[in-house]
Amino acid sequence: MSKIPKISFTAARQASARRAMGRLKNKYDHVPVSQADVIVALGGDGFMLRTLHRYLKHGLPIYGMNRGSVGFLMNEYDEDNLPGRIKKAESITVHPLNMSATGVDGRKKTALAINEVSLLRQTRLAAKIRIIVDGVVRLDEMICDGVLVATPAGSTAYNLSAHGPIIPIGADLLALTPISAFRPRQWRGALLPHDAKVTFEIIDPHERPVSAVADNTEAFQVSKVVVTEDRSKSLTMMFDPEHNFEERILKEQFQP
Amino acid sequence: MSKIPKISFTAARQASARRAMGRLKNKYDHVPVSQADVIVALGGDGFMLRTLHRYLKHGLPIYGMNRGSVGFLMNEYDEDNLPGRIKKAESITVHPLNMSATGVDGRKKTALAINEVSLLRQTRLAAKIRIIVDGVVRLDEMICDGVLVATPAGSTAYNLSAHGPIIPIGADLLALTPISAFRPRQWRGALLPHDAKVTFEIIDPHERPVSAVADNTEAFQVSKVVVTEDRSKSLTMMFDPEHNFEERILKEQFQP
Amino acid sequence: MSKIPKISFTAARQASARRAMGRLKNKYDHVPVSQADVIVALGGDGFMLRTLHRYLKHGLPIYGMNRGSVGFLMNEYDEDNLPGRIKKAESITVHPLNMSATGVDGRKKTALAINEVSLLRQTRLAAKIRIIVDGVVRLDEMICDGVLVATPAGSTAYNLSAHGPIIPIGADLLALTPISAFRPRQWRGALLPHDAKVTFEIIDPHERPVSAVADNTEAFQVSKVVVTEDRSKSLTMMFDPEHNFEERILKEQFQP
Amino acid sequence: MSKIPKISFTAARQASARRAMGRLKNKYDHVPVSQADVIVALGGDGFMLRTLHRYLKHGLPIYGMNRGSVGFLMNEYDEDNLPGRIKKAESITVHPLNMSATGVDGRKKTALAINEVSLLRQTRLAAKIRIIVDGVVRLDEMICDGVLVATPAGSTAYNLSAHGPIIPIGADLLALTPISAFRPRQWRGALLPHDAKVTFEIIDPHERPVSAVADNTEAFQVSKVVVTEDRSKSLTMMFDPEHNFEERILKEQFQP
Repeated sequence: MSKIPKISFTAARQASARRAMGRLKNKYDHVPVSQADVIVALGGDGFMLRTLHRYLKHGLPIYGMNRGSVGFLMNEYDEDNLPGRIKKAESITVHPLNMSATGVDGRKKTALAINEVSLLRQTRLAAKIRIIVDGVVRLDEMICDGVLVATPAGSTAYNLSAHGPIIPIGADLLALTPISAFRPRQWRGALLPHDAKVTFEIIDPHERPVSAVADNTEAFQVSKVVVTEDRSKSLTMMFDPEHNFEERILKEQFQP
Repeated sequence: MSKIPKISFTAARQASARRAMGRLKNKYDHVPVSQADVIVALGGDGFMLRTLHRYLKHGLPIYGMNRGSVGFLMNEYDEDNLPGRIKKAESITVHPLNMSATGVDGRKKTALAINEVSLLRQTRLAAKIRIIVDGVVRLDEMICDGVLVATPAGSTAYNLSAHGPIIPIGADLLALTPISAFRPRQWRGALLPHDAKVTFEIIDPHERPVSAVADNTEAFQVSKVVVTEDRSKSLTMMFDPEHNFEERILKEQFQP
Repeated sequence: MSKIPKISFTAARQASARRAMGRLKNKYDHVPVSQADVIVALGGDGFMLRTLHRYLKHGLPIYGMNRGSVGFLMNEYDEDNLPGRIKKAESITVHPLNMSATGVDGRKKTALAINEVSLLRQTRLAAKIRIIVDGVVRLDEMICDGVLVATPAGSTAYNLSAHGPIIPIGADLLALTPISAFRPRQWRGALLPHDAKVTFEIIDPHERPVSAVADNTEAFQVSKVVVTEDRSKSLTMMFDPEHNFEERILKEQFQP
Repeated sequence: MSKIPKISFTAARQASARRAMGRLKNKYDHVPVSQADVIVALGGDGFMLRTLHRYLKHGLPIYGMNRGSVGFLMNEYDEDNLPGRIKKAESITVHPLNMSATGVDGRKKTALAINEVSLLRQTRLAAKIRIIVDGVVRLDEMICDGVLVATPAGSTAYNLSAHGPIIPIGADLLALTPISAFRPRQWRGALLPHDAKVTFEIIDPHERPVSAVADNTEAFQVSKVVVTEDRSKSLTMMFDPEHNFEERILKEQFQP
């Protein structure tokens, strides 16, 4: 960005984020999203994800500043020289996952996920899930709590909790990671090409109900879930050069 | 057992188990539980667990024969010389866990668990759980899918799926194993003395509901769960000497 | 390959491999390497690796047939219609790692590795290793048995034993995987971009000697080891379409 | 201890440990070991292990104070009121492992280990090891870097690095933990009863040499190693009540 970027501010509900927005709107011009070059989001990682979803159709880059408890996707909070920082910031563009979930009642629900699409059992009964990759049955019946597909950007989130590997941004891979797999015994999951089409078929979905979640969208008692990367959609985040996103993910891998 | 044992047969619902019971009742005397020396259970591991619960107050040993898909707790099925096999069988006595769960509405639910007591989030929101062992806060806030406490007998079941260690029978330990822990990052759980009192306090139980399960009993939206071993109750299973339970658990650890 | 390929046969030392070569040379024409279109290697994975190294400068594709105990890199052994199978085979080209190891005496040793470059302590004393990626110190001092860098092709070998992730062929990543890391406690390693330059500096190399191995080349008491992918060199293996290498690695991830 | 304990001081080689000993000998009476009630060891965990070995035959308790980089086995360093602290300290008694290693030349080497007995390949060639527990072959051939048997006291040391479980003191278990197992694929090891006799037979010990280490004693090119707990020998360490050893190991399990 060569000229002074026009900023539209948005803030999470917490008081500290809203107060920060007040001060920043006083200091810098604030424009409506329709006129903006960039959106500045104030909050934590959860708010960044919601902001990315909310402004997906505008195609604007989001520059986040941390006003939350976890700020992996956020730059450091600083009120000085914001336009200058934004001009020097580096952009990273990621593609969301598309979840297409079919319920036992036949209804379909589709949603986008920036981090992961995950399935989890809804009752005390273990889930039984068939895993199909690009039309080939890879696991006929996994008995488990659930399973997830994560993007590189999401690989440090739920995927990591479920013992999946951290994937560098730009690796063109997806992580397919089981959640507490009982059979196959201690199965560790797989790294798949980013253009893989992953289909989960729920076995006995009436007796053993399973929910599916794409970031903030939840579908209950699904019978089938198809996950693909949606390359037609792009999300752009901006990071200060000294803490860009590749560096963050790389660093995360060297955390003790 | 020196004399010929009086047998009370019981079978799982599946046809193969019921047909087996028919043939065995023809071949051997069948007595009511109140007159029996031993209960012979026909089915899989799930049925063994149900049988143990059902006859807990009778204090009778259970000799299982495998008519199910998983038969870790079962002896091999064979219709010949059943009294002789029972006389030569080795007994293993285990103590159940007691779960005392308090709901957000203040109601209490108690239940026994032979394998494990487990907690799992009920919605897409991660659970936040405080872990207290013998009155000492060990983890002030774990962000996770859930957590479980397993007996040695249960250590090869859900605990193993959640990446917990297999514990030999007689080790006087319990496994405290997280389910997809996000914070502390990749926490692996702990082995605790068998007489530890483990208290789970759910943080934000209204916004982040968590269910608790003791084998087949499920409590929803709990705010607090206390788990202790109940040494006043005993469960006795009988195993053919060549495949006794210690041996089974030991062997399970050398599975590839 | 449109015409009938000219084959140069080579076999491992084992009798079964040599006998197979005898029969195949009888059945098909055998030409010297200098006139060959393809090398047919008879043995196991170890022999495939040796063959790849040996004929690296000739740039010929290698078609392997399994006469060994492990045949991950090998096609099924079959004496029929070999030229036809070779014509239909799919090629996969990989690049080796280059190891440049400096000893405590200042001498340098360089070698290529198809699978991995690994370091291991030589005595009972734990190794202390500094890890530098692209000039940035990522771990100032890892106390460990050792550490390795694996290619995608090698990710199912030593890397997997050391608990590293399996990487699909074509993922443009390297696995940096610790071997029994004591500090940082239970560090899991990292996935790095394929063009990363990884430098290992041995701390106290006189008191705590460490060896470095690139496939079959071993350097003792090293003080520094630099690992990079060597894109100027290419190795081509040929696989029957029904069991191509991408499929093998993918399948390996779904092994129970 | 009811009367004022007679102390024999000993210190590691480092200057800070030796200076501390100087000051403490000035402040308190120092007696030869033969007249002492307790040995006060000044250094880190490594020095504690050496001190335990050195004074094993005297049967004296060791009270350690931390002057090293790792002080898991050490109390906090404080020069005040040492006799009072020792009188209030809690004793923990552990039994060492006995390693009996036979070399390919037929020579036997025996040594005690407080933490673990470990085997590791000596060259770039993977070790092939048969694992026998109480006379029963449990793994006919493990292909690996090595394997170890750890006591509960040692379970937080090398065993933890090799991904083995932490065992509470008093659990009467040993951890059998593989080091980078290639076959069986990703084998995780086993928890064994403390009185198990573990025999390792090295396959091809001439071609694939393996060393065995009991704490500080190393045997090269072994063909067979037998590991048992030696209940005839006892080692007693003393800990301040607020940080006793059980508590330390328990706490260690809740480390993030």
